Amino acid sequence: MIAKRVPAGRKRVLKAVLAYEGTRFNGWQVQNKGQRTVQAEMERAVEKVTGRHVRVTGASRTDAGVHAEAQVAHFECRSKLPAPVLKRALNHYLPREIAVRSLKDVCKVFHARYGAKGKLYRYRIYASAEKPVFETALRSWVTYPLDLAKMRRAAKCLIGRHDFSAFCTSANAPANPVRTLRWLSLKREGGEIRIEARANSFLNHMVRIIVGTLVDVGCGRIRPDRMKAILESKDRRRAGRTAEARGLTLVKVNY
Amino acid sequence: MIAKRVPAGRKRVLKAVLAYEGTRFNGWQVQNKGQRTVQAEMERAVEKVTGRHVRVTGASRTDAGVHAEAQVAHFECRSKLPAPVLKRALNHYLPREIAVRSLKDVCKVFHARYGAKGKLYRYRIYASAEKPVFETALRSWVTYPLDLAKMRRAAKCLIGRHDFSAFCTSANAPANPVRTLRWLSLKREGGEIRIEARANSFLNHMVRIIVGTLVDVGCGRIRPDRMKAILESKDRRRAGRTAEARGLTLVKVNY
Repeated sequence: MIAKRVPAGRKRVLKAVLAYEGTRFNGWQVQNKGQRTVQAEMERAVEKVTGRHVRVTGASRTDAGVHAEAQVAHFECRSKLPAPVLKRALNHYLPREIAVRSLKDVCKVFHARYGAKGKLYRYRIYASAEKPVFETALRSWVTYPLDLAKMRRAAKCLIGRHDFSAFCTSANAPANPVRTLRWLSLKREGGEIRIEARANSFLNHMVRIIVGTLVDVGCGRIRPDRMKAILESKDRRRAGRTAEARGLTLVKVNY
Repeated sequence: MIAKRVPAGRKRVLKAVLAYEGTRFNGWQVQNKGQRTVQAEMERAVEKVTGRHVRVTGASRTDAGVHAEAQVAHFECRSKLPAPVLKRALNHYLPREIAVRSLKDVCKVFHARYGAKGKLYRYRIYASAEKPVFETALRSWVTYPLDLAKMRRAAKCLIGRHDFSAFCTSANAPANPVRTLRWLSLKREGGEIRIEARANSFLNHMVRIIVGTLVDVGCGRIRPDRMKAILESKDRRRAGRTAEARGLTLVKVNY
C-alpha cells in the first residue's frame, strides 16, 4: 500500500483529464452498488493511492457504453505526492480501459461539472453493407447508404439556442430544456461519417437522439425539411430513434 | 436451415477474402477440438449454409491473436447459390469478429496456400509513456521512445534472399529456411510506428521476431550494426524477443 507511506498534508483539489473505452462500463456515474462505472473505478484508484475514499466528480455523466477522449474530473485529496507521481499511481490501479491523461493541482473552487462552459461530442457511423470487424466498439454500423447532403440540410436548423425537448429522453427532462448548440458538423472520412456536436451543455441522450434523427433523414425515412417542425414540436415522439451508445465519444470539455 | 432448400450441384471452388479481429481466436488453424479458431468458424458457417462439412484452406496460418484485413481462403462446395448470396449467408452465420469481404468462383486448381506468391504483414506499435485505451487489441504498446532512424538502419540488411533461421521459432523450423524479404518499411504515423514486411513467404513467427529485434534496436538494447551478424548467425538466441501477437495484421496475399 502506497497510502501508508503518505502522511496527510493540506487539502488540494486535483483536476484529471481521463480517456476511457466505455464498452464494459455502466456509464460514468455510480448508481447501484456492484455496477461497474468509471466514477467507481476512479474513486477506488484514488483510495488505493491516497488511503482515503473521496468523491470524484465528472464534467459529463456519460451513458453506459459511451467513450471519452478527454472527460474532466476533480477530487480533493491530502496526499503530499506531486501530481505526476499521483498520475502514474492512479494509472497503475485503474483498469486497462481507463487512463489518466493529465493530472494537475487547480484552485480550490474548481468544479469539473459546474465550471464547464461547453462540451464537444463526436459520433462515428460506419455506413456500409460490408460487415465491419475492426473498431466495432467505437462505431455504430448502418448497412444502408446515407445521404450526407440531406443530413447536413436537416442539421442546420438545430444550430443555435432552442428548447431541445424533442431531443431529450422525456423521463429525465430538466426544468429548463433550452440549450445552445454552437456547432453541428457532418463529414465523411473513409468509410465512415463523423458527426460533431458542441454545446454549452446537453440534455439527456440529446446527441444520440439528434444523430438517430439525422440517420433517419440520411436514409430517407424523414424528409430534411421536417427537422424544423420536429424541433418546434418539443415532442420526443416526433424525433427519430436514439442512436446506440457505442458510436459516441466525449471529445473535449471547455472551461 | 438454408441447406435443405439447396440441391447439390456441380463441384465449385470458391475463393474467399476474409477480415478478422484475432484477439479471441486461437489463430487460424484447427488444432485441438474445442479451441476457437478462424478456420473452424469458417467451416461451421460453410456447413450451415451448404449442409456439408468441407475443409477451408487459408493462405496463412495466422497465430493466436493475429488479425487479418485480407486473409485468402478456398473451399469446395456443391451449392447452386450464386456467390453473392453465399457471401451474405456466411456473414450471417460467422461470429461478429469475422467477415467475408469477397467471395467468388475460381478455377478448380486454385489453392489459397500453395498458389500464394507473396504476403504483406503490418505491425503497429504505440510508443508512448501515455497509457492507451483505444484500439488496444490492434497495437502493441511500448512505454519508451523508439529511435526510428536506428531501426531503419538495422532493417536494411534483412531485405533480400537470406537464411532467416535467426528469426524463426526453432521448434518449427522448416527444412528450407531461406526466404526472400522484398520489402521492410518503418514509418511513424501519429503516435504509432508501423512496420510493413512483404515476402514470398514467412517462417514461423518471423515477422514478430524481426519486429521484436527492431524494437530492441530502437530502444538501444541492440546496436543497429549488429543486425547483420544476428542474421548470419542463423541462431534464434542472438535475435531479440518475439513481439506480441496483437500488433500484427495480415494485410494482403498476392497470387
